Amino acid sequence: MSNVIPPLQWQKNKMLLIDQRKLPHTETFVEVKTLEETHEAIKVMVVRGAPLIGFTALYGLTLWLQSNEDKSLDDLEKAVEYLITARPTAVNLEFESRSILKEAKRYIAETGSLKGFAALAEDYSNLQMEKIAVKNQKMAEAAEQELEKLYGNKKLRLMTLCNTGYLACGPMGTALGVIAHMNEKSKLEHAYACETRPYLQGSRLTAYEMVKQNIPHSVVVEGAMSYLMRKNLVDAIFIGADRIVSNGDTANKIGSSTLAITAKHYGIPFYVVAPLCSFDFDLEKGDEIEIELRPEEEVLSCQDVRIAPHESQAWNPSFDITENSIITGIFSENGIAKPVNKETLAKMRTAHHD
Amino acid sequence: MSNVIPPLQWQKNKMLLIDQRKLPHTETFVEVKTLEETHEAIKVMVVRGAPLIGFTALYGLTLWLQSNEDKSLDDLEKAVEYLITARPTAVNLEFESRSILKEAKRYIAETGSLKGFAALAEDYSNLQMEKIAVKNQKMAEAAEQELEKLYGNKKLRLMTLCNTGYLACGPMGTALGVIAHMNEKSKLEHAYACETRPYLQGSRLTAYEMVKQNIPHSVVVEGAMSYLMRKNLVDAIFIGADRIVSNGDTANKIGSSTLAITAKHYGIPFYVVAPLCSFDFDLEKGDEIEIELRPEEEVLSCQDVRIAPHESQAWNPSFDITENSIITGIFSENGIAKPVNKETLAKMRTAHHD
Repeated sequence: MSNVIPPLQWQKNKMLLIDQRKLPHTETFVEVKTLEETHEAIKVMVVRGAPLIGFTALYGLTLWLQSNEDKSLDDLEKAVEYLITARPTAVNLEFESRSILKEAKRYIAETGSLKGFAALAEDYSNLQMEKIAVKNQKMAEAAEQELEKLYGNKKLRLMTLCNTGYLACGPMGTALGVIAHMNEKSKLEHAYACETRPYLQGSRLTAYEMVKQNIPHSVVVEGAMSYLMRKNLVDAIFIGADRIVSNGDTANKIGSSTLAITAKHYGIPFYVVAPLCSFDFDLEKGDEIEIELRPEEEVLSCQDVRIAPHESQAWNPSFDITENSIITGIFSENGIAKPVNKETLAKMRTAHHD
Repeated sequence: MSNVIPPLQWQKNKMLLIDQRKLPHTETFVEVKTLEETHEAIKVMVVRGAPLIGFTALYGLTLWLQSNEDKSLDDLEKAVEYLITARPTAVNLEFESRSILKEAKRYIAETGSLKGFAALAEDYSNLQMEKIAVKNQKMAEAAEQELEKLYGNKKLRLMTLCNTGYLACGPMGTALGVIAHMNEKSKLEHAYACETRPYLQGSRLTAYEMVKQNIPHSVVVEGAMSYLMRKNLVDAIFIGADRIVSNGDTANKIGSSTLAITAKHYGIPFYVVAPLCSFDFDLEKGDEIEIELRPEEEVLSCQDVRIAPHESQAWNPSFDITENSIITGIFSENGIAKPVNKETLAKMRTAHHD
């Protein structure tokens, strides 16, 4: 992994963020020293991917605390609210920002002020990133075991969609983490990355990570899913999840359920990989998940070049729903749920905590 | 259809070809007066679509004959061989060019020279274009009947992939011809066009045709197939065919079989529309069809902008195979084969000739 450039490098009083808008062709960094710069980096998508946005927020608030030890809890609260407006729908951004606020309240209750809290916020941020690395490693090892059960020591051809690697997660990744792990263990023959229209996260970011990690790979268009499997070129498929509900129905990047249906048709194992924080046990079924419809222009254009006639419309849902019945198994840091249903998920949830 | 500009306009001693490379944003014409210009127009893809390439070749040879009445059959043979090299894998180009040669041989046997044959070649070319228009109309009417059986008079939501309209066929089209026909009959509620990566024929050409014919439509990415059907927004799907073999297995643009599998999953009727000249009764099964692998760059780039890292590879088959068992029915000018198997296809083949 020697070529990998971490997407977020914390350097005590600043962050270096790789500018993901310019990948894969240019590796440049944005130096972030203030809360305002953090807000901007999240807003203009220098960073993306739910976990990475969360960590960026944590360090951004640490930066604010470093130069505002004399401010009140009210001021920190304002800083948090301001930061959250950078991307209002990003769950991790809000979650991680509020977690710092909670820690701060506890600290003030004990010490009477924010003085000295910046160092704790820094430790807390480091810890959160370490925790996700451990979780991702556990999921990758569980997937490795599952694949060994199915295929023994055969070198495998694995397929994925969208970007679920270290660029999205900070250290390591979820579904792409499995593929990287298998490659490190010399158990990967080839990886196939769906280009993932309309945003091309597969072609731009997943392929970039694969190059950096020396993962032998080919990019395919989504339309080629079926023929790739028909030609017997895929042993297993791994995707991430935006949200997984109680029965295992999964919301993930548009294209995921088309991929799952195609895999089912050809009898190819299809897995979802996501930490328990991506599970939403308040919802019963996938159809309860609200799916964001994104701007039509993303489909009608490609890389800012208009393709379709100006009179044309498009339908552009950013996610889709994959039913539990066509998912072979779901991995979390607690192991695998297989078959995927309400009971196996509930069991996994309470299996063993770390 | 008042806005439709025919892609090939024959004007006695020249052709006007709409430059399909510049669609949908610019409607310009290439004037073709010689065999050399015909060769160039086919080679650089001013025209595309198997039938339209065939008609362009017919008129190109007519142009040559108009100014070469004193030449020999040998010379015509050389002209034909030269024209075929414009796109060596285009079956219709070779088929139509050789058909003129056959007519010429017969003519020379009767008259002793090519003198006067240009006018016959012109009539023959016109006739071929009229014939395909009649065939396409028959297929569209057969599809209309089938849909009425399924849905009565409900206005329908129809979906397609790639471009199978008048830009590919000259007058009218196959699968897109069905959609245009249904719209003319006020039986269409909405059409969905898959953008058809990597070449984006759906977004560029099908959407253009839909605009010109006032067909209400939305473009979708291939990944959205499943979610579109899950949301119950599609009543039936129509695609064309590159080649259909004896048992009904169909080779068509990459993405077709992914679409068919997804339709099967949701129980949505999936139809293939193609004239009998696209059937290959010499082959038994789809797997016998050789599928062309096209340049990786088409996937790794979009509209000539490189997306993926320069180190990345791609897998880019231009067609895929859809098994007969997941095709609801196949329409030809002889009606429908349903269910799709060797027996129903053989029956349709010999049903009634025109």
